[in-house]
Amino acid sequence: MKYVYKFGGGKAEGKESMKNLLGGKGANLAEMAGHPSLRLPVPPGFTITTDVCTHYWQHKRTYPKGLRETVAANMKIVEKLAEKGFGDPSNPLLVSVRSGARKSMPGMMETILNVGLTEKTIPGLVAKTGNERFVYDAYRRLIMMYADVVMEKAAGVEAEEDMGIRRQLDRLMGEAKEKRGAKQDTDLSADDLKKLCVLFKERVQQVLGKPFPDEPMEQLWGSIGAVFASWMGKRAVSYRRIEGIPEEWGTAVTVQTMVFGNMGDDSATGVAFTRNPGTGDHRFYGEFLVNAQGEDVVAGIRTPQPINENSRTEQSQEAKSLEQLMPAVYKELHSIRDRLEKHYRDMLDLEFTIEHGRLYMLQCRVGKRNGPAAVRIALDMVKERLIKAPEAVMRVTPAQLDELLHPIVDPAAESTHKPVAKGLPAGPGGAKGMVVFNAQDAVAWAKAGKQVILVREETNPEDIEGMRAAQAILTARGGMTSHAALVARGWGKCCVVGCGALDIDTTKKRVAVDGITLAEGDWLTLNGSRGLVYAGSLPMRDADEGSEQLRDFLAMCNKLRKLKVRANADTPEDAARARAFGAEGIGLFRIEHMFYGKGSAVPLFFLRKMIVSKTLEERKRALAELYPHMKADIKATLQAMKGLPVTIRTIDPPLHEFVPHEAEKLAELAKSLDISLEDLEKRAAALRESNPMMGHRGVRLGVTYPEVTEMQVRAIFDATAELLKEGVKAFPEIMIPVVCNEKELDDQFAIVSQIHKEVLAEKGMRTLPHLVGTMIEIPRACLVSGRLAGVAQFFSFGTNDLTQMTFGFSRDDTGSFLGDYLNKNLLPGDPFQSIDQDGVGELMKISVERGRKVRKDLKIGICGEHGGEPVSVGFCHSLGFSYVSCSPFRVPIAILAAAQSAVKDSKGKKAKK
Amino acid sequence: MKYVYKFGGGKAEGKESMKNLLGGKGANLAEMAGHPSLRLPVPPGFTITTDVCTHYWQHKRTYPKGLRETVAANMKIVEKLAEKGFGDPSNPLLVSVRSGARKSMPGMMETILNVGLTEKTIPGLVAKTGNERFVYDAYRRLIMMYADVVMEKAAGVEAEEDMGIRRQLDRLMGEAKEKRGAKQDTDLSADDLKKLCVLFKERVQQVLGKPFPDEPMEQLWGSIGAVFASWMGKRAVSYRRIEGIPEEWGTAVTVQTMVFGNMGDDSATGVAFTRNPGTGDHRFYGEFLVNAQGEDVVAGIRTPQPINENSRTEQSQEAKSLEQLMPAVYKELHSIRDRLEKHYRDMLDLEFTIEHGRLYMLQCRVGKRNGPAAVRIALDMVKERLIKAPEAVMRVTPAQLDELLHPIVDPAAESTHKPVAKGLPAGPGGAKGMVVFNAQDAVAWAKAGKQVILVREETNPEDIEGMRAAQAILTARGGMTSHAALVARGWGKCCVVGCGALDIDTTKKRVAVDGITLAEGDWLTLNGSRGLVYAGSLPMRDADEGSEQLRDFLAMCNKLRKLKVRANADTPEDAARARAFGAEGIGLFRIEHMFYGKGSAVPLFFLRKMIVSKTLEERKRALAELYPHMKADIKATLQAMKGLPVTIRTIDPPLHEFVPHEAEKLAELAKSLDISLEDLEKRAAALRESNPMMGHRGVRLGVTYPEVTEMQVRAIFDATAELLKEGVKAFPEIMIPVVCNEKELDDQFAIVSQIHKEVLAEKGMRTLPHLVGTMIEIPRACLVSGRLAGVAQFFSFGTNDLTQMTFGFSRDDTGSFLGDYLNKNLLPGDPFQSIDQDGVGELMKISVERGRKVRKDLKIGICGEHGGEPVSVGFCHSLGFSYVSCSPFRVPIAILAAAQSAVKDSKGKKAKK
Repeated sequence: MKYVYKFGGGKAEGKESMKNLLGGKGANLAEMAGHPSLRLPVPPGFTITTDVCTHYWQHKRTYPKGLRETVAANMKIVEKLAEKGFGDPSNPLLVSVRSGARKSMPGMMETILNVGLTEKTIPGLVAKTGNERFVYDAYRRLIMMYADVVMEKAAGVEAEEDMGIRRQLDRLMGEAKEKRGAKQDTDLSADDLKKLCVLFKERVQQVLGKPFPDEPMEQLWGSIGAVFASWMGKRAVSYRRIEGIPEEWGTAVTVQTMVFGNMGDDSATGVAFTRNPGTGDHRFYGEFLVNAQGEDVVAGIRTPQPINENSRTEQSQEAKSLEQLMPAVYKELHSIRDRLEKHYRDMLDLEFTIEHGRLYMLQCRVGKRNGPAAVRIALDMVKERLIKAPEAVMRVTPAQLDELLHPIVDPAAESTHKPVAKGLPAGPGGAKGMVVFNAQDAVAWAKAGKQVILVREETNPEDIEGMRAAQAILTARGGMTSHAALVARGWGKCCVVGCGALDIDTTKKRVAVDGITLAEGDWLTLNGSRGLVYAGSLPMRDADEGSEQLRDFLAMCNKLRKLKVRANADTPEDAARARAFGAEGIGLFRIEHMFYGKGSAVPLFFLRKMIVSKTLEERKRALAELYPHMKADIKATLQAMKGLPVTIRTIDPPLHEFVPHEAEKLAELAKSLDISLEDLEKRAAALRESNPMMGHRGVRLGVTYPEVTEMQVRAIFDATAELLKEGVKAFPEIMIPVVCNEKELDDQFAIVSQIHKEVLAEKGMRTLPHLVGTMIEIPRACLVSGRLAGVAQFFSFGTNDLTQMTFGFSRDDTGSFLGDYLNKNLLPGDPFQSIDQDGVGELMKISVERGRKVRKDLKIGICGEHGGEPVSVGFCHSLGFSYVSCSPFRVPIAILAAAQSAVKDSKGKKAKK
Repeated sequence: MKYVYKFGGGKAEGKESMKNLLGGKGANLAEMAGHPSLRLPVPPGFTITTDVCTHYWQHKRTYPKGLRETVAANMKIVEKLAEKGFGDPSNPLLVSVRSGARKSMPGMMETILNVGLTEKTIPGLVAKTGNERFVYDAYRRLIMMYADVVMEKAAGVEAEEDMGIRRQLDRLMGEAKEKRGAKQDTDLSADDLKKLCVLFKERVQQVLGKPFPDEPMEQLWGSIGAVFASWMGKRAVSYRRIEGIPEEWGTAVTVQTMVFGNMGDDSATGVAFTRNPGTGDHRFYGEFLVNAQGEDVVAGIRTPQPINENSRTEQSQEAKSLEQLMPAVYKELHSIRDRLEKHYRDMLDLEFTIEHGRLYMLQCRVGKRNGPAAVRIALDMVKERLIKAPEAVMRVTPAQLDELLHPIVDPAAESTHKPVAKGLPAGPGGAKGMVVFNAQDAVAWAKAGKQVILVREETNPEDIEGMRAAQAILTARGGMTSHAALVARGWGKCCVVGCGALDIDTTKKRVAVDGITLAEGDWLTLNGSRGLVYAGSLPMRDADEGSEQLRDFLAMCNKLRKLKVRANADTPEDAARARAFGAEGIGLFRIEHMFYGKGSAVPLFFLRKMIVSKTLEERKRALAELYPHMKADIKATLQAMKGLPVTIRTIDPPLHEFVPHEAEKLAELAKSLDISLEDLEKRAAALRESNPMMGHRGVRLGVTYPEVTEMQVRAIFDATAELLKEGVKAFPEIMIPVVCNEKELDDQFAIVSQIHKEVLAEKGMRTLPHLVGTMIEIPRACLVSGRLAGVAQFFSFGTNDLTQMTFGFSRDDTGSFLGDYLNKNLLPGDPFQSIDQDGVGELMKISVERGRKVRKDLKIGICGEHGGEPVSVGFCHSLGFSYVSCSPFRVPIAILAAAQSAVKDSKGKKAKK
């Protein structure tokens, strides 16, 4: 087994595709150093493989046999290439020892620099560099890092709070600066640093009971061991858990010749992107510092200089660019940039150092970019023929695409502000506004032209107007599918829910959080994509939803995908927006949504009358009053979709949800029904249920009150018939929810067919195009899908409810335990966010198989919240769904996810061949 | 195809095994008449097959070709055997035309007697019988039946209410009697009847527009058609729906020579059972009337006489027996009884008629019997070597066995009282008592020595003491698995729930129902096996639960069954009862049940403290106080089971269920926690959930509060260790409920294993016998059963919850729609009563398959309410379960059902060979 891969001098044993073995950093260094078309100036070094890490942890922190010898042999080669000697007093070689995992784990593992500096090698380096201060600065850095990382952490020494060696050395350095009246580290002289190094070593001996090692090889092995040890460090373990990185991957260790950008004014160090990571602009972009080390760039003490004109920022208006200062080096760097992009066919993030006018490449990896940049780079690279459409589609993550669809908090501003609270990311994008505490205030303030954020314990349907008027909604309770979350997501509105840290006092109109108290009118900024709450007003960035880039990108996706994408829309406006985003139909029109929001007062009143009716006659009267409103509502939406299918779900929620809570509305209702308030309250109380989610709802309402189904179906067919007569295409798909049994469908479809006949006769028409189908949201429905498919022409999975019943998790009540489940890693994630493929998905699979067995052309869709979640979309694709349906603002995401699924499929097929 | 099967004269074309073709009646007549070892005196006749019925309905109510000729030919044969002529004026043959389905449908179809009586044949019959009154009485009966059944009903004439021909003729007869001053029909003279017949025929012509037919053949075909027509009559159709009899079975028609028991004192008619159907006593039992027709026996106008001494009742003390009156005929009848029993190897129900001293057998079928009789006959017939054990076990239905286990309302009394209301049969047997309206009154009155029935809107855990004190519980709301039902069934206590007709006023302490009002203290009688409510105090019959018969019968079952039977028991008393009934372990010990009922006040208080604790410290303090109570409770039950396995379920219900409702108890709790009442109410409110059934319960409590699991496991192991040290065997099985995911089990089993280690160390023991397992009650758990079986040593299906989640039916809320579902036939039955095999059962199948694939010896049981329901027990047997567990009083039922399943299995296997 080969444990060590060397690189340098225009050759390398490794390559980029060996990331699993060499880690990202090692593999890319090898690629840059050794690939025939690159052979870039990379300081020589070698990488110890991840296999050694695995061995190390499986064998009580020991190394495979022969490793020491192999490392020693490789050090010899490095010495030769660097033309220096490790421990050579006159011409010493210093090396860095760095971690490198298969997947980047920024800041989670350890690095030790300047390894090889000892009492013996210091004078030689001073002589060679002529810079005593530089050498002692390097030495004190080595002592600080080594004592902390190797001698304390990796050795498992547990220090009391604030008494760790790093903190102690920091304090010593602080005292030295104070003594000197020095403000910055750089104000310390060579002599100061020299003395400090003596103090450091004394303190190390005193605290850790061991001397700081003065043997280069001891330093090297100490550093290698510390990097492997850091793979099991607390931070790394918890990061892996969150990111889902398996423990068995391990880290590699790269040992590399140190080069120094702080050797004087002909030295520099910098980072660059082959294209602008914030816009995608196809120009070289980066910054550097003269006479500095890499960590100085990161630390941000000095303002970096732009590498070229294109990279100038407001802060660097006056600074000279690399192009100006060192034109030859810049030219070389630019040419390397071109070669690397052509080679990697992606935008890259580079690190370079210039030592005495000589350029070295220290790192290269695929560069992080924001959403707009990702889209633009993908499109540009297709035009440049670097990549083809399928690859371009894979280059943009759904989260990046989402950035284009909503205004967001300016990332720069967000990076410098600390959130006061964190909740669940329930509605996308960012928003800011003045705090209000009830729906009426939200409406009134918004009318007065103010931006407001509605802050509530939790919301209910009576808050709808206020929610609509607000820029965003923030609640203290509720989960990802709570009322606020569902409504906000449907509107594409920013929303943070379940923010338990809020202590809201609605009567006094104030909220306390994180030690501060906000009163009505105070500003708040929300990041709904990450669930963050900021006090005050942060700058925002506009959405790109109408941009040409987005349109082109989605067009590219559309050509590739097989899965159709529909939107969940309840109003003609939503329907129009959905069409604009490319929706190919409406997958869920919730008939009851006409009872929420704008213009709902009148129909809601009739609905309430219907609900509390006690006799068939009372109910029929209320239904007749309701009918024209319902017909108009349906007609407008069918019209907006111009013949694209519109799946209309018959009334679904438990009726009690609609019973008013306010005394005034109750009184009005009682009056109109000509019954006493007491009587009305009795009727309302009778509707209450122990577990309404599993109560009298959906098809069960249709079974017990056939006249309610009749009225709805009548409204659908009348609307369709009128449109057709007016020359407008219309195609309703009637969907029955909460079905567990084919006989329920027989019962309801008999009504549909009867009303269909009646409407045809009345209007003198031959047929009205339509489909009848069912929602699959009850576990039993999945099991008896064969029988359901015998009568239903389509299935649409309601994965919210299906998830509830399959887990026995009431989505309104998971708040009390889901956090613990996620913390303890008992669940891989919130199943209401991404479909649980092992459980819920298994039922879906059973359902699809049994359904399609009976009806080959069964149309199958999903209309739950998962329909706009990329992983779930991929799962639906893999099950052979006909379409997914999601809220209008998620349509682009679904389109992308569908296209990516199709690309993965064809890759998989190619791989099989 | 043969459509007509004749019998008579010692021969028959049909036989008993041809029931599907000839109906029960026709097949048994053929068997009696024609079987070589019987050849009984059966009046000659023939049966038209059920195939003709099917043809009749499939071909617009017409007959197969050639049927008329075949019937005519068979009539000729009957005439010859009867030595009479059909329509012969001097020696006329009269026949009966009767229905006969494969399965008895008593009173659901039609019968016409005396067919063949016409103007022409009347004088001949008068001359032959010398009894003009008898002949005209027969004639008026024929007209009444024929006009009603053939001319009106079968012809589809729809009469207005109260204007049907039958009612009109009844009124005419009433008028005739009034005119005469006659009290009874028999007070009318021959002349009166003669005149009445004239009036009848006029009225028939007038109302139905057709004359009453005077041709024998016309009468015969009219009657045959009417019987076939009655197969589709409303009553028959609805009866078939309820009983699950398929429409395509059809009815046969039997045409048979009439014999008359009302020909004078040498004539008689009677019914008999070959053994006593009320006790099973192996002696001939029956009653008869001299000079009477069959319908006179049924009508109950004259008191029947006993056929022998053994059949005397209180009413017939003075009457002469058949044995005394006609010793020769009795002897013949007795010998027929002996031969029939030997032939059929079962207790039979016989009908006979004696015409002028000559005995005729008119019917024979397997006799209905009550529970005690069924058990005794089965046991006796094994002793008599008539049948073997497997057959004997099949002879007793679970419902019959159940009769032995509970006191019941005297069936005789029940048959003469009309219930005032009907609810759901939630707890078995019968009970009576004085009405009380709250738990406190129930306890107080019971202490005062009174029998009470607790009447509530619905019950909750705070009613427990009152429920225990009451003879029975009656509620207006709730379903088969409501609190009242669950508790009552657990105790084997009579209970009727969901009796919506009750209008209860608890403040005024009265209940209105069916037009009457009962006040506190008024008597009420309940039949909990049928859900009936009677006003007043009806006589009762004691239970036989301790009888030798039951013991012997269960011993016979035990030898045959493969499925083990356990009991659900929460107290040492329940455990002891379960053992007495033959339970082989406890399948469900609900740890939280120590917080209900007797002696629960102290532990419940600590539990409540634990529940409303806000800090870990508060909770741990409360748990420490709770621990000794829990340990004592568990220890007593383990001890009672003497080493038989006891499955202990960790705490399951949502905690909010335990929060007190009364102000007084809340105040006490607040005081003991040293917090304000307001604060306590806040904490209690925070526990409330939207859908508690799918909320923070079961394993989810254990995950969020590991210390709660720790305390429970500690109590279990400490109790076990103490018993073992005391020399008592103990075997706990620790069961984690509401699991959806193997990681939940990892989490909880880690606690079990930790505590196990601790207890071993403390007690200085090597091992404590125990198993760890899980309840399967969440759909997802079924799907991931493979993974669960990787860690769990046993599964126990909680089919109550599994049914809830699989259907999305909250068992507390189905009341509002389940009735409509059953009425509309959308569901075959209440899935909370018998397992839904298509949905819930499918999940169980998947679970068993996946679980056993991973762990071959996985112990699988059921502990839901279905575990004591016979059909469900059979289903569990078919899935290869290890055991079923049910409430102690259902243990014998489960034992029987398990034995019957095993017998069916081996029959099936034999049939395959």
